[in-house]
Amino acid sequence: MLSKNELATFLATEFPQTKCSVESVGLRSAKVRHEIGFEELRPGGTVSGPVLMAVADVALYVAILGEIGLEALTVTTNLSINFLRKPSADADIIGDCVLLKVGKTLIVGEVTLYSEGLVDPVAHVVGTYSVPPATAGR
Amino acid sequence: MLSKNELATFLATEFPQTKCSVESVGLRSAKVRHEIGFEELRPGGTVSGPVLMAVADVALYVAILGEIGLEALTVTTNLSINFLRKPSADADIIGDCVLLKVGKTLIVGEVTLYSEGLVDPVAHVVGTYSVPPATAGR
Amino acid sequence: MLSKNELATFLATEFPQTKCSVESVGLRSAKVRHEIGFEELRPGGTVSGPVLMAVADVALYVAILGEIGLEALTVTTNLSINFLRKPSADADIIGDCVLLKVGKTLIVGEVTLYSEGLVDPVAHVVGTYSVPPATAGR
Amino acid sequence: MLSKNELATFLATEFPQTKCSVESVGLRSAKVRHEIGFEELRPGGTVSGPVLMAVADVALYVAILGEIGLEALTVTTNLSINFLRKPSADADIIGDCVLLKVGKTLIVGEVTLYSEGLVDPVAHVVGTYSVPPATAGR
Repeated sequence: MLSKNELATFLATEFPQTKCSVESVGLRSAKVRHEIGFEELRPGGTVSGPVLMAVADVALYVAILGEIGLEALTVTTNLSINFLRKPSADADIIGDCVLLKVGKTLIVGEVTLYSEGLVDPVAHVVGTYSVPPATAGR
Repeated sequence: MLSKNELATFLATEFPQTKCSVESVGLRSAKVRHEIGFEELRPGGTVSGPVLMAVADVALYVAILGEIGLEALTVTTNLSINFLRKPSADADIIGDCVLLKVGKTLIVGEVTLYSEGLVDPVAHVVGTYSVPPATAGR
Repeated sequence: MLSKNELATFLATEFPQTKCSVESVGLRSAKVRHEIGFEELRPGGTVSGPVLMAVADVALYVAILGEIGLEALTVTTNLSINFLRKPSADADIIGDCVLLKVGKTLIVGEVTLYSEGLVDPVAHVVGTYSVPPATAGR
Repeated sequence: MLSKNELATFLATEFPQTKCSVESVGLRSAKVRHEIGFEELRPGGTVSGPVLMAVADVALYVAILGEIGLEALTVTTNLSINFLRKPSADADIIGDCVLLKVGKTLIVGEVTLYSEGLVDPVAHVVGTYSVPPATAGR
C-alpha cells in the first residue's frame, strides 16, 4: 500500500490543475479534500454538481492507486451520483472513498461526500474503473 | 419507528409472492433475507441478477416504511446495481439497507447484498424512491 | 451477425426459465417481448420492477450475442434503471435495445421499455457488460 | 416552448461562468456546445470527465427549462454517466439531450455526448431532476 505522501506527490505532479488534496489513505480507502471558493459556487450559494463529481473521481482514483500502484492505468467507465443535500458555501468538501471490489480488470468503489463539519452527506457516488489489459497483466 | 413484526406482517400481506423475509429493522436501516433455490439460479450455478435487484428493492422498501409508516405510498424511481462477485448457489442472499436521505418527496438508500456467510458483498445497489404528493403532505 | 432464429433457439435452450422471446435483431440492436400475467403484477395492477429489469437484461444479452457470437461469455457488471410511467397490466412489455459501445472488454447499451401499444416508455435502462479475458481474446 | 435565444440569454445571465452555449432547442430536447481548450484537458490529451458531466448537466437544464419555463426551479437529484470513448482534444463537445419523462415533480432525460465531427458518442448520461413543490404547483 502506498503512503499518503507518495499519493499526494503523485497527484500534485500528474494533475497540477486539481484543487483536491489527499487527507488519508487506508486499506481499500482514501479521503480527499477540496477547498470551496467563488469558482466552485453556483448562484444561491451552493457547490456546483461537477465539482462534487470531480472530488469523487479523485477520491476513487487515489484509493485505487493506493491499492494497485502508481504505474497502473485506470479509466473511469461509469460514475453515478445522487445529490442528497445542499452543500455549504463556506466549508470544504470532503470525499470519503471505500472500494467495494478490486478485480483484475474492474474496480468498483463508493464515495460519500460531506461539507466539512456536517454529519449528513451532501452526495453519494458509485464509480467503476477499468484497468486496461496492458496494466491488468501486472 | 415500526417493529420488525409489524413490517414482516405487512410484507407478507401486501406482497404474498415475495420470498423475502424481514431480518431486522433499525434507524433508517433494514436487513432482509431471500432463500435461494432452483428458481433463483442461472446456468453455471449463480443467482440471477433480477433476484438480487428484487432483494434490494424489498430491503429499501422495508427500511423506508419503517421510517415513514405503512400507510405511505412510495414509488421506485431509480435503481442502480453493481454486480461485484458471483453469488453462492447454496447460500441465502442477505440485503443490508441504509437510507442516505429521507426527504419529504425523495428518499435515497443503498443496499449491500451478500451471500450469507461470505464477507465480501456480491452486489451493491443505490435506489431512489419518490413519495407522491398525496402522501408527502402527511 | 446472428439471425433472429439462431438467437431465439439459443435463448430457449440456455434460459428455459425466461419468459422473454426475441422479436428482432439488427446491427448493434435487438427487440424482445415479455408476456405479462398474474405473476408479473404487483398490487395495484402494475408490472413489478424486477420484471422490467429482467426484460432489459435479456434485451441487452441478445443484442450483445448478436454482435459478438453465441460462444462468448458476458457478465452484467452494472444495470441502472429509471422507472418513468406505470406499465399497463394488460399489455406485453417490449424491450428495445441499442448498443452504445462494443469494446473488447466492455459493452454498454441502453434499453427503452414499453407497454405494447403505448408511445411513451415505461422505463429506461443502461447496462454495462464485461467480456472476460478468455473470450475477449477471440 | 422557449426559443433558443431566450434560453441562451438566460444561461449567459444566470451562469456567466459556464462555457456552454445553446445550439438548438426543440420539443423535449436541446443541444449544447462546449469549447475545449487547455483547461478542459487531462494529461494524455483527453477531455476530463467532470467537463463531460457539466455539459450533460447544462444540456438537461436547458431542455427542461425549454419545456417548463425559465421561472421554474429544478434540482439535479441523480446523474449517471458512462464513458464510452476517448474524446478528441481538438474538437468541441456537443451534448444532445432528449427528455424521457416530464412529470410534475420528476423529470428524466438522457444526453449523448460527442466530439464534434465524430459519429460515435464519447459518453452517455441519464439524469433525474426534481421540481420542488413550490414550482411544481405551477
